[in-house]
Amino acid sequence: MSSIRPLFVVAGVGNGTGKRQLWRCRLFGRLGYRVALISRRPEHLNKVTNEINQNGGEAAAFPVAEYTPNSIRSAFSSIRSHFPVSTSPLRVAVFNAGYGIWKPFLEITDEEVRESLDTHVVAAFAFSREVLLEFTKNDPETASEGGKGGSSKRGTLIFTGATAAIRGNITTSAFAAGKFGVRALSQSLAKEFGKQNIHVTHTIIDGAIDIDRARGSGNGPTGETIPDTRLRPDSIAKSYLHFVEQDSTAWSWEIDLRPAQEKW
Amino acid sequence: MSSIRPLFVVAGVGNGTGKRQLWRCRLFGRLGYRVALISRRPEHLNKVTNEINQNGGEAAAFPVAEYTPNSIRSAFSSIRSHFPVSTSPLRVAVFNAGYGIWKPFLEITDEEVRESLDTHVVAAFAFSREVLLEFTKNDPETASEGGKGGSSKRGTLIFTGATAAIRGNITTSAFAAGKFGVRALSQSLAKEFGKQNIHVTHTIIDGAIDIDRARGSGNGPTGETIPDTRLRPDSIAKSYLHFVEQDSTAWSWEIDLRPAQEKW
Amino acid sequence: MSSIRPLFVVAGVGNGTGKRQLWRCRLFGRLGYRVALISRRPEHLNKVTNEINQNGGEAAAFPVAEYTPNSIRSAFSSIRSHFPVSTSPLRVAVFNAGYGIWKPFLEITDEEVRESLDTHVVAAFAFSREVLLEFTKNDPETASEGGKGGSSKRGTLIFTGATAAIRGNITTSAFAAGKFGVRALSQSLAKEFGKQNIHVTHTIIDGAIDIDRARGSGNGPTGETIPDTRLRPDSIAKSYLHFVEQDSTAWSWEIDLRPAQEKW
Amino acid sequence: MSSIRPLFVVAGVGNGTGKRQLWRCRLFGRLGYRVALISRRPEHLNKVTNEINQNGGEAAAFPVAEYTPNSIRSAFSSIRSHFPVSTSPLRVAVFNAGYGIWKPFLEITDEEVRESLDTHVVAAFAFSREVLLEFTKNDPETASEGGKGGSSKRGTLIFTGATAAIRGNITTSAFAAGKFGVRALSQSLAKEFGKQNIHVTHTIIDGAIDIDRARGSGNGPTGETIPDTRLRPDSIAKSYLHFVEQDSTAWSWEIDLRPAQEKW
Repeated sequence: MSSIRPLFVVAGVGNGTGKRQLWRCRLFGRLGYRVALISRRPEHLNKVTNEINQNGGEAAAFPVAEYTPNSIRSAFSSIRSHFPVSTSPLRVAVFNAGYGIWKPFLEITDEEVRESLDTHVVAAFAFSREVLLEFTKNDPETASEGGKGGSSKRGTLIFTGATAAIRGNITTSAFAAGKFGVRALSQSLAKEFGKQNIHVTHTIIDGAIDIDRARGSGNGPTGETIPDTRLRPDSIAKSYLHFVEQDSTAWSWEIDLRPAQEKW
Repeated sequence: MSSIRPLFVVAGVGNGTGKRQLWRCRLFGRLGYRVALISRRPEHLNKVTNEINQNGGEAAAFPVAEYTPNSIRSAFSSIRSHFPVSTSPLRVAVFNAGYGIWKPFLEITDEEVRESLDTHVVAAFAFSREVLLEFTKNDPETASEGGKGGSSKRGTLIFTGATAAIRGNITTSAFAAGKFGVRALSQSLAKEFGKQNIHVTHTIIDGAIDIDRARGSGNGPTGETIPDTRLRPDSIAKSYLHFVEQDSTAWSWEIDLRPAQEKW
Repeated sequence: MSSIRPLFVVAGVGNGTGKRQLWRCRLFGRLGYRVALISRRPEHLNKVTNEINQNGGEAAAFPVAEYTPNSIRSAFSSIRSHFPVSTSPLRVAVFNAGYGIWKPFLEITDEEVRESLDTHVVAAFAFSREVLLEFTKNDPETASEGGKGGSSKRGTLIFTGATAAIRGNITTSAFAAGKFGVRALSQSLAKEFGKQNIHVTHTIIDGAIDIDRARGSGNGPTGETIPDTRLRPDSIAKSYLHFVEQDSTAWSWEIDLRPAQEKW
Repeated sequence: MSSIRPLFVVAGVGNGTGKRQLWRCRLFGRLGYRVALISRRPEHLNKVTNEINQNGGEAAAFPVAEYTPNSIRSAFSSIRSHFPVSTSPLRVAVFNAGYGIWKPFLEITDEEVRESLDTHVVAAFAFSREVLLEFTKNDPETASEGGKGGSSKRGTLIFTGATAAIRGNITTSAFAAGKFGVRALSQSLAKEFGKQNIHVTHTIIDGAIDIDRARGSGNGPTGETIPDTRLRPDSIAKSYLHFVEQDSTAWSWEIDLRPAQEKW
């Protein structure tokens, strides 16, 4: 582990089998990134890191009890003990944490509102702070494949959003308040840190993610398989990689991602 | 005070001289509403309520130390002791609370992020809950001036937003996260409660408000007066009243309000 | 007709019975405006103008064969012969023309695309030009009811938009292209002419308008009456009047209008 | 030319030296696409096609006098004589045509409004029709690099938009009306043809494109070079290629692209 390789940090591995993030981590692992996973779900963490390590990558898990600012700072401190800055400069960070809550408004408790805001927004602020402090110390790096003209970037910070980041709806008030808040943060950071060659982006995942399989298909009314109804995790990962590969002369703040069959 | 008159509740009287809300309160007071003001600034509350009461209205102040859910519920409880439901059905509520913070991202503390989210979003959820519980008990009322066709509404809940509710910018990350969150809530509520004839709206105040004077003018580079550069509080109040007067066959979720000279 | 009264011009009276615009015209007629109606449908024009004239107003019809720039200029010329500038300064104009086309994309002909763009966008440019040339000659006028501070405006130009002005959808490509184009125009004009105290606005009518009746109700699956499912024309008219009454310290570019029961 | 290779068609090569599109064409040429260029500027066409052909690609120029529907259909007919469907299935099409007009509103003529709408919107409809008729005949193709799960697409249609596609501004009324209209079309098509595994996308180019050089830099107030102030054409091309490589389980309708130093 003494050679210099870029570091990829992700917060939020997802529920279910945790395979959603696995694809992203695996992709970046294959590309030579060291991978640090922060999550509240230790059982998924081990599964994912083991798989990456068994496939020739270098991954480590950093469990947190809750996404408080202190626990996030503590996780970054642990990451830096494990992957020192000198050999693992942070180049890509993905904030994927969230709190899925869908309820009629009058059934939502104060605690659930706070939980949504803490996990989405307060955590995103704390995570961004740690990431940006590292990015601002990076030298600009020629973007992969780009470069002839010298365009470069210091790092890429990606926020995983949802349709609820741009539209409130019945039963989504607490979820959307968190997702809107993260989108506001991402746009503010994109404008403030773009001038320092730091790339901040936001994705709108519009549709259900196919967690368990890699086929992107769902079931129709009579149980038949309908392709292109769910987002395939490795397809999402490729768009994240595209963000990373965009150089500082033409990069994106926001894209939407959805399956072909999604009604929108 | 035994006659039946509708109740107008506002949270957040504003800083400066508190005259911003005064116009709205005075307008609704003139129209026959009883006025309840919730604010963290007792000195402004007395000034405003005194003026309304001296002009033939009925206003009372309900100070809170912070905009926590408990203090908001407690304020509503005090309001109901002072203005009983039986004679003062709640018909209009304005949520105007907020926390103005404009700082470069790396200077913002965890506490400031939380304060922005608590004052904007958590408080808006708690306030909305109290308001909507009252609105759902109201009989539909024929909208003022409307009505021939029987269209009616149970109440109007207005959120005061800002440009930062639709656009993040340098130095606005914490402020915009709060304002985006409130906008998400307002849209979710508009969709969920519209079907129950409850009207939820959001205004985007795009520009500085003329607090001390009623002229809507500001000063140019050499100190000269430039008209139509600031929003006049009583002009904002009239648009709020328009929302209240819209009946349930054609009402708005969102409008923007800005002075003619604002660059946007 | 020798006394000075403000002029209200509307382009596009609507199909069906033409009663949609009737409400707007009648409202402005009652408020003392002289009313000039431009339309491709002479049969509706007479009906509307007769009703206004029989109710104490002053209205005249100006039929056009098509909404070409020349026919629009010609209509304004006729309006000025009938209602001279000296006694009828133009104060309010509504552009309501359009071409309703909803078809799968591959069935749309070149002519239909052009017709949609001509009727919506080219006509809106020509209409706006005539209106703005008149507004720029007006003295600022103290807005109705406002005014203590001297805030004033020279005129109000209102564009009637639709959901298709902000969202393309299956079968709406040609219609939405026209409506998006008009919205682009309205925002450009709002910014360019706001500084001259001319107010340009855009409304998003989101839902079906109740043409024949004034009840705002539609029919459910078993034929039962469901209130608040359609926009009542006189309720729309009131929001248009609100735009006109906004003074230049706090005015709106855009509002949405929909019935309480609309799903959105 | 007897082997089967996919066809790439672009309408609008751009002014200046035409190098903007050159990068896109060259990239797709390198990837094995045959390249057909439609443009009103024959001098640029030859330059671009010659360069592609000299570098091992297969490109041909199809000049049009104006972007009328008939001339576009005629160009496609010529393309099909030159590159038969049997050996050159159309897989990627880029619509880049436009009419740059920035003027105060009252100086814009009827002809300029029509020219903007014809070149942007009418042409986009005609171009889309030819493209979609071909795409609907394609078999689904496994997206490059994707595919394990069988997700596939029949073709990708990309519209080049601008900031003026989402925001009207002073002096942009005619330009924005055209760009808004194309965006409306692109969203409608994305929804209608997504279900047929045809991918329709829209890019918002927010900033000036570096035409002559590949460095993405501009000049500051004292003539100094400032990097990352202009979009580099080959960087834009890479995002276009990313759209093409997205499979039908997770694709995008819209992205924005801007240089790091752009103020927005």
